[in-house]
Amino acid sequence: MTVGAALDVIGIGNAIVDVIAHADEGFIGREGLPKGAMTLIDAARAEALYDRMGPAIESSGGSAGNTMAGIASLGGKGGYVGKVRDDLLGAVFRHDITSIGVRFATRAAADGPGTARCLILVTPDGQRTMATYLGACVELGSEDIDPLMIGSAQVTYLEGYLFDPPRAQDAFRTAARAAHATGRQVALSLSDPFCVGRHRAAFRELVMGEVDILFANEHEICSLYETESFDAAAAAVRGHVGIAALTRSEKGSLVLAGGDSHRIDAAPVARVVDTTGAGDLYASGFLYGLTHEMPLALCGALASLCAAEIISHIGARPEVSLRELASRAGLI
Amino acid sequence: MTVGAALDVIGIGNAIVDVIAHADEGFIGREGLPKGAMTLIDAARAEALYDRMGPAIESSGGSAGNTMAGIASLGGKGGYVGKVRDDLLGAVFRHDITSIGVRFATRAAADGPGTARCLILVTPDGQRTMATYLGACVELGSEDIDPLMIGSAQVTYLEGYLFDPPRAQDAFRTAARAAHATGRQVALSLSDPFCVGRHRAAFRELVMGEVDILFANEHEICSLYETESFDAAAAAVRGHVGIAALTRSEKGSLVLAGGDSHRIDAAPVARVVDTTGAGDLYASGFLYGLTHEMPLALCGALASLCAAEIISHIGARPEVSLRELASRAGLI
Repeated sequence: MTVGAALDVIGIGNAIVDVIAHADEGFIGREGLPKGAMTLIDAARAEALYDRMGPAIESSGGSAGNTMAGIASLGGKGGYVGKVRDDLLGAVFRHDITSIGVRFATRAAADGPGTARCLILVTPDGQRTMATYLGACVELGSEDIDPLMIGSAQVTYLEGYLFDPPRAQDAFRTAARAAHATGRQVALSLSDPFCVGRHRAAFRELVMGEVDILFANEHEICSLYETESFDAAAAAVRGHVGIAALTRSEKGSLVLAGGDSHRIDAAPVARVVDTTGAGDLYASGFLYGLTHEMPLALCGALASLCAAEIISHIGARPEVSLRELASRAGLI
Repeated sequence: MTVGAALDVIGIGNAIVDVIAHADEGFIGREGLPKGAMTLIDAARAEALYDRMGPAIESSGGSAGNTMAGIASLGGKGGYVGKVRDDLLGAVFRHDITSIGVRFATRAAADGPGTARCLILVTPDGQRTMATYLGACVELGSEDIDPLMIGSAQVTYLEGYLFDPPRAQDAFRTAARAAHATGRQVALSLSDPFCVGRHRAAFRELVMGEVDILFANEHEICSLYETESFDAAAAAVRGHVGIAALTRSEKGSLVLAGGDSHRIDAAPVARVVDTTGAGDLYASGFLYGLTHEMPLALCGALASLCAAEIISHIGARPEVSLRELASRAGLI
């Protein structure tokens, strides 16, 4: 049953609608938000912060949701698992992910907190700082994992942010086991250095035991191995996973597989407008390539191209067809 | 009481949240939507169209709302009158307009239809085609016009779209009378050629009787005077209003005032991404200039600059500080 997968990738993540505004450095400081990172906030703080922030646009987000949107934009076949409420933002999230052809069968919560929101503040340097109210995401659990659907995808992709809501870790492990039981692969993104700090032991156990493909940026991989040396972290992870794709912003990325290393250049960007989704879309390109039997260096180049598109505009979902972009670049 | 106005401009319009998606020409055709224009749709059609359209972003809109956002971004003092419901989209609309410093005191409707939505389809040529569900806008009436607030602004700006909901025409006329009673000026945008067609007689009466400053594009002014000749329409309007600003897309605009004519070039745009809000933001620049005693040619240049910013990205609210943009261009 390892051949003939119906889907390329299934993403599992926090289903979130982004609320994106410009802000200056002073505002980030006054709100006590660690710049460039994701902070969890409760409903009351979300409301207060929204009141103080500037005019915003709303756009579906969520790390794995963004990744799946990217895979769909590349022409890949994707599925998504995540929990919204049966409210307006939930309908928006569902519309945005299903209208691009991603299968999204997770039932909306009929009561409890509303659909999750991430207040994203973009500073003049293009960096994004996030404050997330998890809302209905806390309702995701093992019962939302359909082993048949997991088994239908070549890769099950898990976002590290899933370790924050209480019951999603179970869903996470259930999905990983279901994938391996049918001979499929498990990919994990470490999501955020603070998130790694909150769940380091659990992440290490997963990386050593369940993860075939790991995505992490420099800060996240260093946090995982509690080292300040990127080289030391890279050396450590090499023995733990089949493939590690380590991103370093404008310095490109490093792809490790067994004894091999591939240095990938960052794709050129005229102007970095908003870095939201850079890592998510890197994963889109990489996983599309991997599930279409492209060599690793090409997977990395496609990943860089997708990341470059997403940081050239506001928002974390592609604004143009990534397939056309990749085709023009000679990558597809 | 004509001196010392607390506000530069008060805008009155349909308070709408935009839902913006890319679409190809074929989709517009199959949906039977006149390309480039605004079509009114009911709740059921709005839902069906949303189901069929692609992934979207949500952004506060509404013609006069966009204009006021532009005036605030230029550093002007503005107010806004429009009707939302006390629902999530209504809260989003209120947040977006008040967070930039525009006074918005209109009470939200506590029952009846939800906050208005405009489904905007942007074709590859950058042109936008709009389908509007008016929702709570139908509740706006004369009782929402505060003559004291109207009297506090140098200019009361009315969007032509206000002629579509049933009771807003009364609000429109009440506001115009209140403005003139305190020696203030009344500006009108014709909004859309089909809208002009629906309400031609009423618009002509208003233009001849109540309007001091008229904004219209080529199609709208030709529709108003039922002529195919722009020159004939321009000649006709000259005698009817104090100032007419007639926009012609990439051909720039023509500003008529008494016997004077000013030809204004369009400001350069690297790439037209989405024309939504071009006319609205032209009005922002023009009215800011007018209420800050700038000569008409300069008002027109500022108007063109604001329009150029808005069509260079998705969405009808400014993404950068228009004041900084205008300052760098030497206009403020």
